[in-house]
Amino acid sequence: MTKQVAVILAGCGVYDGSEIYETTLTLLRLDQLGIGYRCFAPDIEQHHVVNHLTQEVVEGEKRNVLLESARLARGEVSPLEELDADSFDAVIVPGGFGVAKNLSDFASASDSMQVLDTLKATLVGFREEAKPIGLMCISPVLVPRLLEEGIAVTVGNDPAVSGAISAMGGLHRSCGVEDIVVDLEHRVVTTPAYMLATRISEAATGIFKLVDRIAEMMD
Amino acid sequence: MTKQVAVILAGCGVYDGSEIYETTLTLLRLDQLGIGYRCFAPDIEQHHVVNHLTQEVVEGEKRNVLLESARLARGEVSPLEELDADSFDAVIVPGGFGVAKNLSDFASASDSMQVLDTLKATLVGFREEAKPIGLMCISPVLVPRLLEEGIAVTVGNDPAVSGAISAMGGLHRSCGVEDIVVDLEHRVVTTPAYMLATRISEAATGIFKLVDRIAEMMD
Repeated sequence: MTKQVAVILAGCGVYDGSEIYETTLTLLRLDQLGIGYRCFAPDIEQHHVVNHLTQEVVEGEKRNVLLESARLARGEVSPLEELDADSFDAVIVPGGFGVAKNLSDFASASDSMQVLDTLKATLVGFREEAKPIGLMCISPVLVPRLLEEGIAVTVGNDPAVSGAISAMGGLHRSCGVEDIVVDLEHRVVTTPAYMLATRISEAATGIFKLVDRIAEMMD
Repeated sequence: MTKQVAVILAGCGVYDGSEIYETTLTLLRLDQLGIGYRCFAPDIEQHHVVNHLTQEVVEGEKRNVLLESARLARGEVSPLEELDADSFDAVIVPGGFGVAKNLSDFASASDSMQVLDTLKATLVGFREEAKPIGLMCISPVLVPRLLEEGIAVTVGNDPAVSGAISAMGGLHRSCGVEDIVVDLEHRVVTTPAYMLATRISEAATGIFKLVDRIAEMMD
């Protein structure tokens, strides 16, 4: 039986959605390993729309997270509430500001953040079944709220974000862009990706390691 | 001196812009080879906006090709009219319907199509300097109009598109998804990518071969 991995998206574009290269590289590696995947995203309005040339918020423009995620998934995306941990062997959450704006309010609330109820219910399902969970870039900041305290993760070496993770009861380990942090007990794998990457090939190295480790843990 | 490649984008998303995976895989391979790149896109309104979940046109919504391309380029994109062939060693055009809707009107006009004047001026610059030109997916359909007749290209094995290429004076060669067609005399390299790919790893194999060959031709 082909293993199946759920990939959770939060839009399409680093500043208001999922980071495009992180997502693409995740899907590439899964497919290269012969692992099936399905993308999921919440059917909600984006927190806002950002002009990616100027990084300014576009006043008055609205976009839907599921529809924008469909761009990144070539149309093959399902609403997040349809994701059932029983049907998948692992779950991966790429980064991008959408994680901190659409899947949670970390971008504005920091360590007081709330996460989307649907996301929490879903991730808890994977955790209860001891299925591996991969997160990259800013996504590891979700872990203390989504799962439980005391899980080791990395976002690289950003003092503000790692401090917030600690304040929420998480454990942060510094990590290079081409490496991963593995919490074997809780089966959580994280990599800094574009929290640190200055080149796409650096991000690829860390992301491929993360996917490879998730694949090993599914065996 | 690091070699530099210009990558021409047409938006962000397979149905109304540049194909996201084809673009990402192109940039990944260039970076893995130590080749620099810069993305360019025309500062024009998109032909239309497509809901990527339903593939239906979203009536009344407008987006700008340069701004949407900025999502795909993590903000690092310049207006197409600033692209000077003298400053680059090669040029690559990923696919996606944006090529047939924003860079040209091939999607509606077939072999009567017109191409964007800026794009034609730019590509002719590369051709005149005998610098390698790479095109993938639907982009090779531009070649007879952009450059000259009699250049061998591939879009895989689509009868309608290859017929249109022939009708415009181009030469079409059938090609598998994991392979490339090279017109050595005219220094044009093409690969079918998502004209044929059913998996991202298949597209990657052909695209990596295209980038590798372009790299060899720049030496």
